[in-house]
Amino acid sequence: MSTPTFDPKNMPFRRLGPSGLRVPVFSLGGWLTFGKSVVGDPCKEIMKLAFENGINMFDTAEAYNNGKSEEEMGRVIKELGWHRSDIVITTKLYWGTRPGPNNGGLSRKHIIEGTQESLARLQMDYVDVIFAHRADPNVPMEEVVRAFSYVIEKGWAFYWATSEWSAEQIEEAYHIADKLHLIPPIAEQCQHNMFHRERPEKEYAKIYSSYNIGTTVWSALASGLLTGKYNNGIPEGSRFDVEKNFFSGTVKQLQSPEGLEKIRKVKELTKLAEEELQTTPSALALAWVARNPNTSTVILGATKPEQLLENLKAIEVIPKLTPAILEKIEVILGNKPEPVNQYGRPLLDKFGKL
Amino acid sequence: MSTPTFDPKNMPFRRLGPSGLRVPVFSLGGWLTFGKSVVGDPCKEIMKLAFENGINMFDTAEAYNNGKSEEEMGRVIKELGWHRSDIVITTKLYWGTRPGPNNGGLSRKHIIEGTQESLARLQMDYVDVIFAHRADPNVPMEEVVRAFSYVIEKGWAFYWATSEWSAEQIEEAYHIADKLHLIPPIAEQCQHNMFHRERPEKEYAKIYSSYNIGTTVWSALASGLLTGKYNNGIPEGSRFDVEKNFFSGTVKQLQSPEGLEKIRKVKELTKLAEEELQTTPSALALAWVARNPNTSTVILGATKPEQLLENLKAIEVIPKLTPAILEKIEVILGNKPEPVNQYGRPLLDKFGKL
Amino acid sequence: MSTPTFDPKNMPFRRLGPSGLRVPVFSLGGWLTFGKSVVGDPCKEIMKLAFENGINMFDTAEAYNNGKSEEEMGRVIKELGWHRSDIVITTKLYWGTRPGPNNGGLSRKHIIEGTQESLARLQMDYVDVIFAHRADPNVPMEEVVRAFSYVIEKGWAFYWATSEWSAEQIEEAYHIADKLHLIPPIAEQCQHNMFHRERPEKEYAKIYSSYNIGTTVWSALASGLLTGKYNNGIPEGSRFDVEKNFFSGTVKQLQSPEGLEKIRKVKELTKLAEEELQTTPSALALAWVARNPNTSTVILGATKPEQLLENLKAIEVIPKLTPAILEKIEVILGNKPEPVNQYGRPLLDKFGKL
Amino acid sequence: MSTPTFDPKNMPFRRLGPSGLRVPVFSLGGWLTFGKSVVGDPCKEIMKLAFENGINMFDTAEAYNNGKSEEEMGRVIKELGWHRSDIVITTKLYWGTRPGPNNGGLSRKHIIEGTQESLARLQMDYVDVIFAHRADPNVPMEEVVRAFSYVIEKGWAFYWATSEWSAEQIEEAYHIADKLHLIPPIAEQCQHNMFHRERPEKEYAKIYSSYNIGTTVWSALASGLLTGKYNNGIPEGSRFDVEKNFFSGTVKQLQSPEGLEKIRKVKELTKLAEEELQTTPSALALAWVARNPNTSTVILGATKPEQLLENLKAIEVIPKLTPAILEKIEVILGNKPEPVNQYGRPLLDKFGKL
Repeated sequence: MSTPTFDPKNMPFRRLGPSGLRVPVFSLGGWLTFGKSVVGDPCKEIMKLAFENGINMFDTAEAYNNGKSEEEMGRVIKELGWHRSDIVITTKLYWGTRPGPNNGGLSRKHIIEGTQESLARLQMDYVDVIFAHRADPNVPMEEVVRAFSYVIEKGWAFYWATSEWSAEQIEEAYHIADKLHLIPPIAEQCQHNMFHRERPEKEYAKIYSSYNIGTTVWSALASGLLTGKYNNGIPEGSRFDVEKNFFSGTVKQLQSPEGLEKIRKVKELTKLAEEELQTTPSALALAWVARNPNTSTVILGATKPEQLLENLKAIEVIPKLTPAILEKIEVILGNKPEPVNQYGRPLLDKFGKL
Repeated sequence: MSTPTFDPKNMPFRRLGPSGLRVPVFSLGGWLTFGKSVVGDPCKEIMKLAFENGINMFDTAEAYNNGKSEEEMGRVIKELGWHRSDIVITTKLYWGTRPGPNNGGLSRKHIIEGTQESLARLQMDYVDVIFAHRADPNVPMEEVVRAFSYVIEKGWAFYWATSEWSAEQIEEAYHIADKLHLIPPIAEQCQHNMFHRERPEKEYAKIYSSYNIGTTVWSALASGLLTGKYNNGIPEGSRFDVEKNFFSGTVKQLQSPEGLEKIRKVKELTKLAEEELQTTPSALALAWVARNPNTSTVILGATKPEQLLENLKAIEVIPKLTPAILEKIEVILGNKPEPVNQYGRPLLDKFGKL
Repeated sequence: MSTPTFDPKNMPFRRLGPSGLRVPVFSLGGWLTFGKSVVGDPCKEIMKLAFENGINMFDTAEAYNNGKSEEEMGRVIKELGWHRSDIVITTKLYWGTRPGPNNGGLSRKHIIEGTQESLARLQMDYVDVIFAHRADPNVPMEEVVRAFSYVIEKGWAFYWATSEWSAEQIEEAYHIADKLHLIPPIAEQCQHNMFHRERPEKEYAKIYSSYNIGTTVWSALASGLLTGKYNNGIPEGSRFDVEKNFFSGTVKQLQSPEGLEKIRKVKELTKLAEEELQTTPSALALAWVARNPNTSTVILGATKPEQLLENLKAIEVIPKLTPAILEKIEVILGNKPEPVNQYGRPLLDKFGKL
Repeated sequence: MSTPTFDPKNMPFRRLGPSGLRVPVFSLGGWLTFGKSVVGDPCKEIMKLAFENGINMFDTAEAYNNGKSEEEMGRVIKELGWHRSDIVITTKLYWGTRPGPNNGGLSRKHIIEGTQESLARLQMDYVDVIFAHRADPNVPMEEVVRAFSYVIEKGWAFYWATSEWSAEQIEEAYHIADKLHLIPPIAEQCQHNMFHRERPEKEYAKIYSSYNIGTTVWSALASGLLTGKYNNGIPEGSRFDVEKNFFSGTVKQLQSPEGLEKIRKVKELTKLAEEELQTTPSALALAWVARNPNTSTVILGATKPEQLLENLKAIEVIPKLTPAILEKIEVILGNKPEPVNQYGRPLLDKFGKL
């Protein structure tokens, strides 16, 4: 069943931000799936298929299904007997797996204890990248940067990165690392999709140009909205149906005027995808994020092998995103972030006009 | 018997100084008790009760009962099977456990050897915070800061701190850490109570504002004086009675004119506590220290479980310490430290008057 | 059979660049031989003979015969029971031993994973020097210098070095190491022979004078061309014959006008060697590189014990290379690199003339 | 037999240079004795007696009897079951224990390999202080300081020190350590006695005042000359008799006019010791070095237990060295080094006179 349908040698690899680590344009994430709906043999099947199709990066977090995502991923990797240097493993710390005042956040205590517990669940000596799953305003940045540098010096990770930090927070981490000769983060795991653009496209602009930070994108399909499957309501068995409680806010928002306006746009994108690119709206949405020069990898979720193969078709769509097509997409979306200059005002064109 | 009488979720947690470590407002210390009058099952009972009531921080020292306090605490924690990240363990080095020229102080030799011996007694791989139990004028500050940074880099502690250091010594530690990119201390374990205020309230003022150092307070009840139990002389079985030799100076001082004046004040405080706050003088005294914004935690001692529960009532007194009540307390005490400005002269008010 | 013919005490030792490590003027390399044509007992015989003749430095690389060179060398050293401090082992990272995006280059991931795999193949806890087998323009220099410093701090190597880096890249490594207080490289493993002089003699001039970098020279015999064995065509069984595919370009180049011109020069050098120095063209060519003050060691290859002994005769030729002889060699070669000053123009003599 | 004759509590302890390590004024060294003339039970007996008399510091070196001194010392300490923190162990690297180009000196290779071999012979995890037994002009100071800092960071030693380095070399080590935030040496093991004063009293003057370096003195008795035992020629069984070859130069020098002049002075010192201080010339000579404020410890050698006890009598002589007595000694010696000011000229007194 798991015969690859895509030549793994065609998987494009990119550097993860400024680092020397190469990551595939599409990687596999274990959020909401591994250790929950996807366990045992099906989990193994999906990871095996991913690897056979060129996806050698697997992303998880201590908090994904309360540690079970890491356990499941670790077990599968061990059973498949992959050579450690052939794969890239990333995990994240912040939300913890236990209650209690020190079982989360970015204190030195949780960064060290949390890393050791993640590695135990993964049955590994190290991960490739460890992410701060959120910023922690209750810990001085010096303590955070020192602790992640410590994790790297101990050999428990090769790099560290951030997730959903503000540009100002990333800037401060660089400032501290530079001052103390410590190690700065290399990537930011952020939400980025056609309906969520301000932070990744505008707020981070200075961070990209100053530090060459790369993004590891989550929610590129806007929780499935951009697949077009909600074009005619919430189908039975879809994520919004199965995970009703988790996504209740999102579902409600979808039924608001703004939500209905989004669905209208998805329908137009679906038409564009099918008629002009001979592809699906999913593949278009994924390719659209992947084509961004600051995107290092787009993290895919998958509950079934077919879904993964389906999404990998986006690789062939990337070169089809010509300036003309991109402009048509902007017209449909109507939400292109306005660039700002360093004085915080909109950039003027060469004639001194906005 | 050990049914909690206090909802552990009501225990307030604070950051330990500038760090990301969270500590409970009241913690449990092993000075003079663990490994001495409190051993075996009673020790276990008290620690279990403390934990069930939200106290997850346990403080000890190499010198407490010559290492026995650490041994007892380590044994109990192992037997209770607590998850390591759920608790905060602090110990201290300086006084040593053996005679000999290098078995104490803050030389690199004793800091490293002493830490390893403390960890062996505690049966732990690391403590959360390691304190320099006193300053050591015979060791250059660079050697001290380097050695504690080494202990942290080895993974034997997450943070280091000081105990009964002068503001000038703490300042020097920050200076050295800053210059050499080493790790500065985060807390100061000092005596602080209604009768001992100059150092914690005045001498450290600049240290609090410059470095956000937090205090872990010992002797908040002034060796029991503030419980009111010496209001009518030294009762049989009280600490001053049982530990006659250790406290002989204190007892003598109590019978001096200054001592009698203190007892007079305690009687007034007792009246205030009972009549205006419907609480005990102990709870008032503990809450008074705990309410100080620079206090990270107040360390409680306990020889019996009841005593611990009794003292935890102070948590409910903290919000009752209104400005009016605090002013009444100042009137009774009459010992408020005079703030000084940076030129060493008393601060002037906005009209240029003292 | 392996009776030494050369007194090992006559082997000259030099410091490897600016470091305190002493290396023999001639060392033994495992490129193209160990783990390929030279395995098992013959490999052991050659290494034993080398050691008995004063050669205590052995050079290999992860990529030499895809890891087999390291395995063979490690096995032999273990079997011979040499005392670790008596020998100098060097290996190199960059080309990797497996396919895949992260199994090569100078990312932190490959430097750390690759070092551990090399040490496993060598059955050693550390090597003396680890080389970056090429520069990697896809990895920031800070990541490279940090990762090699990490390898040294972990105790996996005493020093690190470069191979076939440009002077500008070496300069950048020094800049980063100096800025961040990290460890700079000590040597450059470069090609240097009578027909390949621009880089080692001209490009590196500033690097030698600024940092005292030493070279560990490979291809001192220009793939055998300078032995004179191709003076009358490619003999059966020679490297160019046996390794036809690997050297196809070189062989073709040899038959071009430039190649024939080189052979003409080798014939003249052969005459000079035999008539004026009573030695072979090989010994002359080796001595000529070894006499360069920036050469720390010349790496010899050997497929047979006799070959090694033959080449060691070069040691006796070094002192015979008088200024007059060196000038005759320059006349034959006609390719002396023109020195440049810091403005990139030819240096003027003291009369202001070129 | 080994009943202590001296109350160990009377042993004065001093800080070793600027460090927090306390060393006894008299310590025991293993040069020329341990592992050679003193082995097995006699060695144990001497070390046990030393310890019972307050001497808790034992000094050895990799080169002392080619490693045997370390082996003997390590064996005895293990057999006596001393608590590690009760003793101070020092060893030295430079001369090596094996032939070969990298088995000595101060390269990173020898410092790391040598330390590990010393620790193996001593059967210890660490020594208290590791000395560079000589300076090595063939290794850049940065490599030396980095390597000793590495040894300390690894936990193999608490401090490092120098032996017979010039003031300029020590100054350079401080310069490098300061620039790179590495660890500087704390002591200098130098020859210092009534006939060898220029270096310890004059050359190091600036080093003492700048860095508070302490000395660990060897040869305080000038190879026995100051004991008075050569006052009437070389007696049978004395060190100069037994170790004829090792000391041949010294013995010859003793019979020269300068040597005879020295013996004349020793006779005068003997008279002074006996008549004015009721002690032996040995005790006087030892006390004279020990009383120097820059001396941290004077290392004693001993081949017999009695000899050690005899020498410890010097402790009681120290307070008897009044200014008047010291002046009489200067008159006898006539070799007081002339102090120099920073311009290299003799210091003027307050009236502008020499």
